[in-house]
This record gives sequence, structure tokens and C-alpha cells, in this order.
Amino acid sequence: VRSIRLLLGYDGTSFHGWQAQPGMRTVQGVLEEHLRTALDGEVRTQAAGRTDAGVHARGQVVSFATTSALPVAAIAARLRRALPDDLMVRAAAEAPAGFEARRSARARRYSYRLLDQDDVLLRRFAWRPRVALDLDALERAMRPLPGERDCAAFMASGSSAPCPRCRILRASWRRWEAGAILDIVADHFLYRMVRNMVGTALRAMREPDPAAAMAAVLASRERARAGATAPPQGLCLEQVFYDEDPATGTSR
Amino acid sequence: VRSIRLLLGYDGTSFHGWQAQPGMRTVQGVLEEHLRTALDGEVRTQAAGRTDAGVHARGQVVSFATTSALPVAAIAARLRRALPDDLMVRAAAEAPAGFEARRSARARRYSYRLLDQDDVLLRRFAWRPRVALDLDALERAMRPLPGERDCAAFMASGSSAPCPRCRILRASWRRWEAGAILDIVADHFLYRMVRNMVGTALRAMREPDPAAAMAAVLASRERARAGATAPPQGLCLEQVFYDEDPATGTSR
Repeated sequence: VRSIRLLLGYDGTSFHGWQAQPGMRTVQGVLEEHLRTALDGEVRTQAAGRTDAGVHARGQVVSFATTSALPVAAIAARLRRALPDDLMVRAAAEAPAGFEARRSARARRYSYRLLDQDDVLLRRFAWRPRVALDLDALERAMRPLPGERDCAAFMASGSSAPCPRCRILRASWRRWEAGAILDIVADHFLYRMVRNMVGTALRAMREPDPAAAMAAVLASRERARAGATAPPQGLCLEQVFYDEDPATGTSR
Repeated sequence: VRSIRLLLGYDGTSFHGWQAQPGMRTVQGVLEEHLRTALDGEVRTQAAGRTDAGVHARGQVVSFATTSALPVAAIAARLRRALPDDLMVRAAAEAPAGFEARRSARARRYSYRLLDQDDVLLRRFAWRPRVALDLDALERAMRPLPGERDCAAFMASGSSAPCPRCRILRASWRRWEAGAILDIVADHFLYRMVRNMVGTALRAMREPDPAAAMAAVLASRERARAGATAPPQGLCLEQVFYDEDPATGTSR
């Protein structure tokens, strides 16, 4: 049995998220259907980040085991010929024994794009909130986040996680073509955590002390204290980090 | 009879260009259909730039005459409620008597986006050529363009224009998120001119003297000497300039 690792990009607009669901067009469903044809047998895939409906990926990592002897370049070529336009295989490689895209991942990097004006071209990949953006205040709101943090306040209500403690390695905003972009890296993310942080940052932005407002929400551990969930289309899984990658910058 | 001016944005992916054609989904067709309902009567629109199939717009200007007494804000509101997601009314205003979006325009600004890597999110709005981008050489290739120029070499073969002389006010490349973006302003553009200039710039980029290569194509006035037409999805009509606009920077 070999283990194969794929680097995927997808436009999440027309997918009901990563996870296979009967009767729904999902990334896992479309990918496994084409892997079945390419490898002539059932394949079960695992993804580093289980993106929600409408969420995009430029750097999703997926692993699967196969008994096929087909070279990895041929697997990638067969997939590339067959996959729809909105799902792209960026790279494919043999993975070390025991590699699992989800369990082996050390950190993930997501982006969230906010628009400061309506933009018909970018509306699929960014969200325009109803408030004017204050980049400086947004940046100050993120200051309490880096470090080992209990992120229960940012976990979707009704969901549960074995461990709400996350190691946040980076959380910062920068100016972008048409608004502001959040760059956030953590060892793992709770369900809807980034989208809830964005909603909370937009509320904290309008407070006299954005950092204190964010710190109070974090310390409360209460979902009800955080802001509204930002919509999915602004979110993108940009990169996943593994120990064995030599030059990723955050792995060791 | 009043004259109304609209500022439109559209994602050109699912339109067969601006111009109404029977049985085709075009921007003019969709817009006039909804104006007919909003104003309860036939309306003929005119656009500043007749964009081709697949070409986008963030700043298209459209004018039409109407005998309706409906306030312009109500016309805009009716359109906004009815128009599809990929066609957006950004602004609407009463225009001075005699205003025509096409004939009154003094200059147009287009962008063309090139990718230097595959990007599943940006592939609708940018083009990845098969050559590596050299921004410095691209920039040098544009140097012969600003000024009063006979642009016959960049006019689509088989088309004709009353006057191939264009006043090019700006033509420059800059780095962009995922590649290079061309910013070009001229009083008017010939059919497929920007896309032919982009194809020619990509070829000139690989010459020892990119500026001389571009100048030779320009001087030849022969379409056969220019490069291949770059595909439509990288092109976007960004802005149209009029005399009556106070702060546009290029009008007077």
C-alpha cells in the first residue's frame, strides 16, 4: 500500500464544502469519483482542512492510500484531464509511510478577504461588510490572539472540539487591492473559528480600544460574546505545514 | 425626454459580451430587459466601451433616454433588486442634455491581468501565459506606446476603424498579487487592441530589446507583425472619463 499526497486548489463557490455527502457536489465527492476512475478502485481521501460550503482553497492537502502501481505523475495527469475547472491538482507526490494529511499537519494558514467597496469581480472571493474598514483598528483587534489560546468563544455554537486550545502563530491584517486581508496561522482551527474571529474583529474595530474588546471576548470563552459569523466566500485555506517540508518557515 | 447615466460593473464570464444579440445572454440584452420592466417601456442603451465576450467591467458607463418621470434613485433601486449577481449598478445619475456614454467619453482605462502561476480563484479574471513573466522587460516593451500613435498593427484582422490613430495616455505594468497587471489609458481603443498589445508585449519581452521590438511592430502598421491575441478573461474596463467629471485626473 502506497500513500499519496495531493496539493489542491478549488473555487468553493459551487461546492457544498469538502466533505462527501450523498446527492451533493462536494470536493471530496468529486475528487474520489475521479480517483476511482483513474485508479480503477475505491479510494478514501483525507484532507488537512475540512472546508465548509463556499470556502475556497489554494493549498489544501489531501492524502490517500492505494494499492495501484500507477506512477504518481500519471495519477496527477489523469486527474488533471478529468477534473472540472474549479478543482485543480497543483502537485502530487509519494508520501512517507504513515502520512495522513490531517493528523500529520503541524499548522494551517488561512486568509480572509474584506472589501471596502462593491466589486462584481471579487464578490466570489471576498466579503463586503456594511461598515467602513479601519485597517489600523482591525490590526489592533488581533493583538491578543497570537499565543496559546482557549478559543471556545470563536467555536461555532452547537459544535464541540476535543480541545479548544489553539496555538495561534500569526494573526494580522494588511491592505489588499480592494480592502483588507487577514493572514492567520495556527496549529489547528475550531469549526468556523476564522469566520467568527473576523466578525468579532469587525465589531471590536468600532470600540475605543479594539485590543481590549477582543481580549474580553477571548477571555469569556462564550460564543454569545463574539461577533456574527462572517460569510464563507471571503475565506481561503492557503497553506498547510508539515514537519517533513524543508522550507515552509513555520515547521521544524 | 431625460438622459440617464449608469455606472456598471460586470463579471463577463457568463455574458456573450456587451452588445445585444438574439438568443444570446449579453450585458445590453439583460440590462434593457430589466429597464423595460422598471420603466414600463422600450429603452435603447449605449455603452462607452463595447466589451467582447468574456471581458469584464468595473467602470462601464451606459446612457439612455427615457420619458419616464421615475426618480433616478428609484430606477437604480428597481434595477438592483432585479439584476443577476454578475451585473451590478454601481451608480445612477441624471445626465446633461446631449450626453451619450460613447460619444461623450474622452478616455477609457483598461486593465489586463497576467498570472505567473496557476490560480484556481483568479483564473476567471486573469490569464496565465506559457512563458515566465519578466516584469522589467514587459515594462520596457510599453515605452514606445504613449503618445499619438497609429495602432493599425493592433487592430483585429478583418475589422476596420474610421481612424486607427489613438492617443495613448498611459501604458504601464506593475506587480500584482499573482503576476503582472497592465494599466492602459487612451482616448479610444480599436477592436481587440489591448489584447493584441498584451500578446505583442509577451513576445517583445523575450527579445534583447523589448522597446525596439514593440516600436517595430507599431511602425509596421501590420496586424501580421503583432503577437497573438491574449484571451478575454484578463481584460477589464476599469474607468471612463468625461469632460464634466471634476476629479478624474485625465479629463479637462
